Amino acid sequence: MSNVAEDAGLQLRSTVTPDGELELSLLRVATPQPKPDEVVVRIEASPLNPSDLALLLAGADPSTAESRGSASEPRTVARLAPEVMRAVASRVGQSLPVGNEGAGVVVAAGSSAAAQALLGKTVSVIGGAMYSQYRCLAAAQCMQLPEGTTAADGASWFVNPMTALGMIETMRREGHTALVHTAAASNLGQMLQKACLEEGIGLVNIVRKPEQAALLRELGASHVCDSSAPTFMADLIEAVAATSATLAFDAIGGGKLVGQILTAIEVAASRKQGSYSRYGSTTHKQAYIYGGLDRSPTVLTRSFGMAWGVGGWLLTPFMQKVGEETVQRMRTRVVQGLKTTFASTYAERISLQQALSPEVIASYAKQATGSKYLIEPNAA
Amino acid sequence: MSNVAEDAGLQLRSTVTPDGELELSLLRVATPQPKPDEVVVRIEASPLNPSDLALLLAGADPSTAESRGSASEPRTVARLAPEVMRAVASRVGQSLPVGNEGAGVVVAAGSSAAAQALLGKTVSVIGGAMYSQYRCLAAAQCMQLPEGTTAADGASWFVNPMTALGMIETMRREGHTALVHTAAASNLGQMLQKACLEEGIGLVNIVRKPEQAALLRELGASHVCDSSAPTFMADLIEAVAATSATLAFDAIGGGKLVGQILTAIEVAASRKQGSYSRYGSTTHKQAYIYGGLDRSPTVLTRSFGMAWGVGGWLLTPFMQKVGEETVQRMRTRVVQGLKTTFASTYAERISLQQALSPEVIASYAKQATGSKYLIEPNAA
Repeated sequence: MSNVAEDAGLQLRSTVTPDGELELSLLRVATPQPKPDEVVVRIEASPLNPSDLALLLAGADPSTAESRGSASEPRTVARLAPEVMRAVASRVGQSLPVGNEGAGVVVAAGSSAAAQALLGKTVSVIGGAMYSQYRCLAAAQCMQLPEGTTAADGASWFVNPMTALGMIETMRREGHTALVHTAAASNLGQMLQKACLEEGIGLVNIVRKPEQAALLRELGASHVCDSSAPTFMADLIEAVAATSATLAFDAIGGGKLVGQILTAIEVAASRKQGSYSRYGSTTHKQAYIYGGLDRSPTVLTRSFGMAWGVGGWLLTPFMQKVGEETVQRMRTRVVQGLKTTFASTYAERISLQQALSPEVIASYAKQATGSKYLIEPNAA
Repeated sequence: MSNVAEDAGLQLRSTVTPDGELELSLLRVATPQPKPDEVVVRIEASPLNPSDLALLLAGADPSTAESRGSASEPRTVARLAPEVMRAVASRVGQSLPVGNEGAGVVVAAGSSAAAQALLGKTVSVIGGAMYSQYRCLAAAQCMQLPEGTTAADGASWFVNPMTALGMIETMRREGHTALVHTAAASNLGQMLQKACLEEGIGLVNIVRKPEQAALLRELGASHVCDSSAPTFMADLIEAVAATSATLAFDAIGGGKLVGQILTAIEVAASRKQGSYSRYGSTTHKQAYIYGGLDRSPTVLTRSFGMAWGVGGWLLTPFMQKVGEETVQRMRTRVVQGLKTTFASTYAERISLQQALSPEVIASYAKQATGSKYLIEPNAA
């Protein structure tokens, strides 16, 4: 491993203990010698996505977090409610690494030409355990970044951009022509709006605050509905009618919003259909829940006829369904647009040690729009 | 019309008035002269299905029903709540005939061979407006009943039997191998259980009362879960695990039951899968809501991973999707089994006049399992 300064590095681990505690710790793990087709990446940047937070915090109550370790061996614990413990029963006792995606510099490479070609290059990577100082990965799992694109630029290259493009792809495959999106001022929502503008696709953005609406309008959004406004349902119906959107992607999950969207689509479709049918319009209305910002139950007031569906949506099964060729096309498009369409913004950049701080946990656990965190595992 | 004793007959009509009332009345309508390919059927029997009740009563409050007409021109009115009025706004002022399906005797026929062949025969029919003494229909819309099958036997030949077979067909088309069914002691539920036994398909029946469970067990049901039992969730999980059911059909719609079924399927699937995944099992769990016995919101406590779907299911779009050949195969099977697999039972048989009685309306509006009504439009 002549090219690697260290042959071991820190890795963040998340463990649910049998007595109902979450334990976060930093482990010193050996960096493997790369096989011929592998490289070692010094991870410079990795985002804290909602999907990472679910694994990292396991549903623990952030307000109960306290430091228990030492400066050299930091350790933070927090309590899990009994109903949460039931939901995570199958991971009890397992020390799990975290971090879906990231970017960094290739500091060692196996003997193959593909691996050697990446030596010294800045690459985006996926594969889990990115909250680590070093990761040994197949060269094929690395995406070389264009000149001038930093590791921080390329850290959130997969989950959000591919989800945004996956929504558009799903729309086309299922015969819809426009979209509704909730929590739409998120990094992901901004990417979706920019991608829809590029392709001329109608998009109805639903946000919860006036300042989020302003942010999207600055990006060029034509349709932004603020769910905190008294005119929300009327606004939503008009926007859905204007775009002919019949498919929604929802990051929130809990509450009445998904049902309200289906109702708005139904009202717009019934207007066009004209005549009365006791079963509602024949227009198929679909909503996919892809996140769970609100863990409370989904409440569907079924006032939208019988031609409707609600379901879960996840990136990985979507990619398996569409196949390698489509995925490659999407990845290439993302990497070209990392500083434009698919640019992310971060409220804070933190070290691995800071990721274990109870105050910092309390902040990133809120998952508030506009307050995304980036972990820099090799920051001083 | 030499073969028809009368050239006019009574027809039940349902109207929502602009001032928020439901009005039921009996109209004397002329029976058309049949065209070459048509026949006139004297309707002897037509069931009051939940889908008929939705059109007939338009969501009016049955407790407010009162008779306003005379013996010769009966008329019953009932009040609609304002939110119900909004839902039925597009039918206000229209005098609508009711009754999806029925059976009777062909009393007149057009000149074509197909029509003439039916003269004097007992036939099952669909096409709406069956709460009428006479209906003029295309000969192709009539299904001649086998010797020994009465009009009462053949009245519920379409909606329930085709829905039961449609559930099985949907199961196969969407890659599932067993079913869960709610409100399972209904006429439809009994048909589904008998059809599943004939085909060796696993079926988990969910009922709300011990006597309903007993009824299904008498038919040969292996899996009956009583949602009023304290062990309901545990029973449901075991039954789902035993059958490997991953698809549910729900007649109720409101409340937590659909979510409980998805959770039971997920628990059974996770047991088989073994290892922990933060996104739940990869087993796709699907529920279709095909009725609305409970109009309250559907409440989904999302504890069943991300591979799930809930949607509306209706017989007519299903038939359009599967095509004429499959539908014909299903219809033929139904007619052969009208006295066995697809036999219906009725708590009461009523005349058109009785269908307008406030006391009778209060009874059939309950849609209680085991209290189905049959209308006999030509009963003395």
